[in-house]
Amino acid sequence: MNTAAIYHRPESEFAYLYDKDTMHIRLRTAKGDVKKVNLLSGDPYLVSQKWYQEPQAMLKILSTDLYDYWFIAVTSDTKRLSYGFTIEGEDGLSAFYGDHGIYPLEEKYLAMANNYFRMPFFQEIDRFKSPEWVKETVWYQIFPERFANGDPTNDPEGTLPWGSQDPERQDFFGGDLQGVLDNLDYLEDLGINGLYFCPIFEAGSNHKYDTIDYLKIDPDFGDGALFKKLVEACHARGIKVMLDAVFNHMGDVSPQWQDVIKNGENSKYADWFYVREFPVTYTEGKDFENASEITYDVFAFTPHMPKLNTANPEVQAYLLNIAKYWIEEYDIDAWRLDVANEVDHLFWKKFRQVCDETKEDFYILGEIWHSSQRWLQGDEFHAVMNYAYTDAILGYFVKEEIGLEKMVSEINSQLMLYPDQTNQMQFNVLDSHDTARLLTETKEDKDLMKQVMAFTYIQPGVPCLYYGDEIGMTGGNDPDCRKCMVWEEDKQDRELHQFVKELIALRRTKSSILSEGTVQWLETNNVDGRIVFERQLSNQSIQGIFNTGTTTITSEISGKVLLSNGVQVTNQHSEIAPKGFVITSK
Amino acid sequence: MNTAAIYHRPESEFAYLYDKDTMHIRLRTAKGDVKKVNLLSGDPYLVSQKWYQEPQAMLKILSTDLYDYWFIAVTSDTKRLSYGFTIEGEDGLSAFYGDHGIYPLEEKYLAMANNYFRMPFFQEIDRFKSPEWVKETVWYQIFPERFANGDPTNDPEGTLPWGSQDPERQDFFGGDLQGVLDNLDYLEDLGINGLYFCPIFEAGSNHKYDTIDYLKIDPDFGDGALFKKLVEACHARGIKVMLDAVFNHMGDVSPQWQDVIKNGENSKYADWFYVREFPVTYTEGKDFENASEITYDVFAFTPHMPKLNTANPEVQAYLLNIAKYWIEEYDIDAWRLDVANEVDHLFWKKFRQVCDETKEDFYILGEIWHSSQRWLQGDEFHAVMNYAYTDAILGYFVKEEIGLEKMVSEINSQLMLYPDQTNQMQFNVLDSHDTARLLTETKEDKDLMKQVMAFTYIQPGVPCLYYGDEIGMTGGNDPDCRKCMVWEEDKQDRELHQFVKELIALRRTKSSILSEGTVQWLETNNVDGRIVFERQLSNQSIQGIFNTGTTTITSEISGKVLLSNGVQVTNQHSEIAPKGFVITSK
Repeated sequence: MNTAAIYHRPESEFAYLYDKDTMHIRLRTAKGDVKKVNLLSGDPYLVSQKWYQEPQAMLKILSTDLYDYWFIAVTSDTKRLSYGFTIEGEDGLSAFYGDHGIYPLEEKYLAMANNYFRMPFFQEIDRFKSPEWVKETVWYQIFPERFANGDPTNDPEGTLPWGSQDPERQDFFGGDLQGVLDNLDYLEDLGINGLYFCPIFEAGSNHKYDTIDYLKIDPDFGDGALFKKLVEACHARGIKVMLDAVFNHMGDVSPQWQDVIKNGENSKYADWFYVREFPVTYTEGKDFENASEITYDVFAFTPHMPKLNTANPEVQAYLLNIAKYWIEEYDIDAWRLDVANEVDHLFWKKFRQVCDETKEDFYILGEIWHSSQRWLQGDEFHAVMNYAYTDAILGYFVKEEIGLEKMVSEINSQLMLYPDQTNQMQFNVLDSHDTARLLTETKEDKDLMKQVMAFTYIQPGVPCLYYGDEIGMTGGNDPDCRKCMVWEEDKQDRELHQFVKELIALRRTKSSILSEGTVQWLETNNVDGRIVFERQLSNQSIQGIFNTGTTTITSEISGKVLLSNGVQVTNQHSEIAPKGFVITSK
Repeated sequence: MNTAAIYHRPESEFAYLYDKDTMHIRLRTAKGDVKKVNLLSGDPYLVSQKWYQEPQAMLKILSTDLYDYWFIAVTSDTKRLSYGFTIEGEDGLSAFYGDHGIYPLEEKYLAMANNYFRMPFFQEIDRFKSPEWVKETVWYQIFPERFANGDPTNDPEGTLPWGSQDPERQDFFGGDLQGVLDNLDYLEDLGINGLYFCPIFEAGSNHKYDTIDYLKIDPDFGDGALFKKLVEACHARGIKVMLDAVFNHMGDVSPQWQDVIKNGENSKYADWFYVREFPVTYTEGKDFENASEITYDVFAFTPHMPKLNTANPEVQAYLLNIAKYWIEEYDIDAWRLDVANEVDHLFWKKFRQVCDETKEDFYILGEIWHSSQRWLQGDEFHAVMNYAYTDAILGYFVKEEIGLEKMVSEINSQLMLYPDQTNQMQFNVLDSHDTARLLTETKEDKDLMKQVMAFTYIQPGVPCLYYGDEIGMTGGNDPDCRKCMVWEEDKQDRELHQFVKELIALRRTKSSILSEGTVQWLETNNVDGRIVFERQLSNQSIQGIFNTGTTTITSEISGKVLLSNGVQVTNQHSEIAPKGFVITSK
């Protein structure tokens, strides 16, 4: 038995409260190495006695290229638990694994009270909790400058005619909030029920990530009154609103930074930023590798985005006031946090507290591209932008960078990084304003696009649609992915639109099982590319069969067909063409 | 290569800021399995280029029965770091290990930006910080009812003559704060510079863990004015003062609980506790296994200690006020938190904040007997009672439950659970009011006691002496370990006293290297029981040679001898008797 591969970590994604009475326990072992795992558990104050309850068998739930993961849900009358694992290897050897590592499976080691992991008390207040509404949401991401121009009177100087050309980095096309308001019918009809807006606060660029005034709607987009009206209109239609907060850095034309430029270390904002040397200067036009010529810390290597010192109580007060203001005054439902990983934890904990106090069931989404456990302990974010997850899907289905086994391994690996209730909150994006569009990535293969969307929409987590994907918009990397939305129906791909609409409806109708259901890979076939993926909750299931190979596959289909593409039914079975799929429910 | 055994976890004890510019990175591999580990690192925004600096070799620092641990200290000009590991197995195979697991060591995998672990920004505010004075401290634990009776006028009714008998569970002997004040000369002469008091607040029992009034010194011990005088007198002698806070539960004679008994769910304190069913009742005299007959949550299975609901803001305000009161009004230097693991994290974070705001360099010590990473992230405790560490020492040296290899494995394993700066803060106890005394555990073998103390005092972490150990007091488990301090010099073991005094002096003189120095096991010999253990800092070292075998060993001794026992010098070398040791410095 590969005892060195066995891993458990108390008070982590391996051991957490799922609901107030239920604790989830996971254990990792080397793949294919272990036959059976039992949990020994009982009250910590009874350990000196023959204390533990009957051993309970754990279930092998998911595997990666290197590991098997075992799972059990347990409870405790006293809300306390000491626990350890007895592990039986495929080689017939056995071991006891507890807080002091691996021991022979002998009574004297089982009797050592300090040898057990602990859940000291089922603390509901520390539990990772999730707003229920998020599970029922399908998000739609809007890049406001490009979604719709509802009010030409606020167009900035030099605004180009809508859709007149592919966007260059500095172009303006006049998109605004009125444009969104005018098109709520369209969005409601599409079926989405959450709007994620890229920044809308006053800023110099078209993307508005270089904030000047966090308390003001950018005049190119409208004003506070209009935004209020928009939020109310969204809420009236059951649509939630998420804004983008750029708290890692500010734009360099902000009054605060301008004051630092002017007054140097005597500026009252001198400690608002990470200045290494006064006066603040930089050498323009250099590339990344010459970054050291900036005398202050910045976002990436961009001198125009000086990094905010969120450890400074004044900065904290300033930003927390902003966080509160938009919730209190405009009733927004969620914040998306830009470059969230580079801001300190202490600040995010305060941010979370302010949001929680201001509005019940508020949702906080952080932009983090890497492992994010530390931010997802229940007192900072509810979720992160789940690129790590969707990258695996794209890497297999679309980019053909990884094989089927590796994709499954990656997905399972990601699922095992977080508690189940966190996985249910994750924000699954296939594309965004920061990436090429999905249809472009698929080389305009619509069937492939449908397949990968269908696969993603039945994963745990919450899908987000990037504006215009549903009507067949294309676009390479930024700025090409930020083209103007096409509103002329004859230029829209209405067939794709109908498909996306049905997919959204499916996700929303089945939101409970698609959020909370278990994940099971019933079949992953390297040879013919067949994937049979199932979600289960209580006695219900949703099953997806995907043909990711190059030849038609045949399959029995039982249950009710919810959505399909490239499927032909003949007698008792169905033929699924390459890039085809079928989703059924039972 | 055992790739399944390789482990790293970003933002944890495997990757943390040591000081504001230095990041410590650790990697775990299977024992004896890996020949070489290199760190690849660079700025995350340069990943798409040939971005990483020259690979840096990591150092294999410590091993356990299953693992080798690799270490490197790094810095970053941009205060950001992406990093991964290239690992070369003893079998000649190589691998790249990053945020998405193990990959072949090929350029295309090294070029995947998302495949690297991240330290997104060197956040000084999130760094685990430690009060410098703790590193220079040797603690002395006082059980106030038994240390000294300085004022017979406050003796409770039925007080027994001092030391007239071995203590029974309910006995009172009249110890008090005046007794401590009267004996500060003794303590200062002994050389300790920290006093850790078991609870001194009003309570019914002799141990005072069943608090009635947290804002009042127990009248049996004195009053606020006397305590203030005591703290001032301690501070004048350079002695720090730590009080014991029992915030997990209250005594059942407290006015709050009495109100709940009387008024049931209409009590204004009804939500201060975890009441399962009103009226609150319990069945007296039952043993642990009949605990379910209590209708409220309690400490362990003790109906007299109802558990406090620290999730209730009123309870939080009440307890935080207490935390602040004793710091602000009496200038204490540290809180020791009883049953700290069973109180919620959110509360402890608030507690930490209040302490930090009230006094600079305040120290918080939690009672936790198991793995404690979650409490030691920098925003809750500075340290825990380090039983897990000293248990391994006692288990080998004294109780003979584990072999030498297992002890070393356990010690190294514990060191690898926490950042280095946390290890420097840990509270190392060989005995306490909750355990048998060390001299009793050694079956009154003084040489063994000296050896195990010497070994413990040169470990990372801060030693704590239990009152009376230094004069040869004995005692089995509670209440026997709580005998009255012996003050008649002719009944004290003055030779032992002298030894302990020298050991304390050694620890204090060499506090810097004994706190911050690296740990190296130069020799651990299963056959003759020789342990050569070294601490290093800059170009200084402290070395201890311990004979834990049954025959005399011979050793070259170089450097200056700081302390020894059972050592005879003959010509160029020394003979160390069983249970003997020598500590030298270079």
